[in-house]
Amino acid sequence: MAEERATQVPLAFSGAALDRSSIDRRDAAWMAAQRSRAEARSLMLSERGLWVEDGRLLLVAPGADAVFLGLVGDRPLFAGDATEGEPDRGHPAGLREAATELSAEEAALGAYAASLLSWHRRHRFCANCGAPTEVVDAGHERRCPSCGAHHFPRTDPVVIVRVVDLRDRLLLGRQGSWPQGRFSVLAGFVEPGETLEEAARREVLEESGVVVDEASYMASQPWPFPSSLMIGFNALGEGEPRPGDGELEQVRWFERDEVEAAAAGRGEIMLSPPYSISRRLIDGWLADPG
Amino acid sequence: MAEERATQVPLAFSGAALDRSSIDRRDAAWMAAQRSRAEARSLMLSERGLWVEDGRLLLVAPGADAVFLGLVGDRPLFAGDATEGEPDRGHPAGLREAATELSAEEAALGAYAASLLSWHRRHRFCANCGAPTEVVDAGHERRCPSCGAHHFPRTDPVVIVRVVDLRDRLLLGRQGSWPQGRFSVLAGFVEPGETLEEAARREVLEESGVVVDEASYMASQPWPFPSSLMIGFNALGEGEPRPGDGELEQVRWFERDEVEAAAAGRGEIMLSPPYSISRRLIDGWLADPG
Repeated sequence: MAEERATQVPLAFSGAALDRSSIDRRDAAWMAAQRSRAEARSLMLSERGLWVEDGRLLLVAPGADAVFLGLVGDRPLFAGDATEGEPDRGHPAGLREAATELSAEEAALGAYAASLLSWHRRHRFCANCGAPTEVVDAGHERRCPSCGAHHFPRTDPVVIVRVVDLRDRLLLGRQGSWPQGRFSVLAGFVEPGETLEEAARREVLEESGVVVDEASYMASQPWPFPSSLMIGFNALGEGEPRPGDGELEQVRWFERDEVEAAAAGRGEIMLSPPYSISRRLIDGWLADPG
Repeated sequence: MAEERATQVPLAFSGAALDRSSIDRRDAAWMAAQRSRAEARSLMLSERGLWVEDGRLLLVAPGADAVFLGLVGDRPLFAGDATEGEPDRGHPAGLREAATELSAEEAALGAYAASLLSWHRRHRFCANCGAPTEVVDAGHERRCPSCGAHHFPRTDPVVIVRVVDLRDRLLLGRQGSWPQGRFSVLAGFVEPGETLEEAARREVLEESGVVVDEASYMASQPWPFPSSLMIGFNALGEGEPRPGDGELEQVRWFERDEVEAAAAGRGEIMLSPPYSISRRLIDGWLADPG
């Protein structure tokens, strides 16, 4: 709990204060009524980003194809794909930019919408038979008129693991494609047929050669790039790190003072942004001196 | 920890003792060498189930299309789809049956294989463009030769929540399609743009009207029906339950003695099987008297 209190910046992309109305939205008559209400609004996304104006989400009247996000208070909120018709106001912002420039609630709505719309964009056809699919359930399902298959938005679980050793050092690695000096805790997709804890152990071993003891759950964060759910663990590790699977170009143990300097914006390395679970895991370790 | 010690039956479908060789398997030459080794074996699945013989997995020489599961010890293990050519030995067993009849390790291998093969069976076409896709990475990816999209096996995170109230009662519900008298803790798919804790709160509210306080993580379990990952939480709840979203036909608070009787196989209701995380959550509550 001491760790929790020590963290100041909220995790971005969570905390959307809305009622998803998961049952009501399946009712076509209810949905049509919501869509035609004067107070209904739609946020807009294109492949260039989330549309904002004056530091807030740009909200417009919902188009016929907009997917339903839920009720914010009593107002129906939708998300529209602006790729083939951009709004004539505001400008597109990347989601990472939105995470710092918008309020936490608006960034969370943007992340939710981005995951949903990118799924539609990349799933227009039936994976089972190849036919074009149709949108149902107000945008929360696609159905195949040819073979009848139901398709639901995808959420990919990812384990992200803070590994510390008995000498109180932190395991961080970097991918070659990242900005110079940027390091993070290790992460990877959960594979079929494994628990979260098994995935944590496998990923750390594959990426670094470090053997991880029992992993304990910390927190989770939606990560809309495009549709991951980051699931954070703390673990005790042992071993001499070496880049293992071609994903990391560098991985090593860091002393506490090196990581403290990085968190303060000094020193050789840069950490993940404050709104990320990677940084939350690291800040928790810094706030908890052994 | 007292809860953990009190549970006797291991969670099924986890604990596969194998090295997935996630890096090596991308190397076509390495894979070809593994496939042609004399000690290579393949378990077999059809839509009728997992093939077993004398209470063990039936293992045969791997066919050309078998997907690679990993190395068990030093032996390469594959999984073959027997739908269009069933083995002439053994018989198919459902996965739930396998969970009790096979060793924990073999059941875990079967679950892993079942998730992977059912994904292939239902994802032969590109969701992005509709063209037929090709198997790459030894069966851990499908790629589209037409538009170039990469497709990975899907794992759907599900929250499963043990809700107890301040009067030490347990919230259980039942779906109309279940065997008569069967009750379980509540569960539901995580939606895009929510944390696990937000999903737990939303699902319980939708299905029962009960409001849940902070949820704390307990354990996770691969659930190959067809490709879920059950993520278990404990939570404190308050409210008068009523079936909410049409999924449950009955939901109510149960007294401790009712649940104890059910766990002992007596009384009015039946609980989920001992190898399920649903039952693990319930047994943990029974073992921890307030």
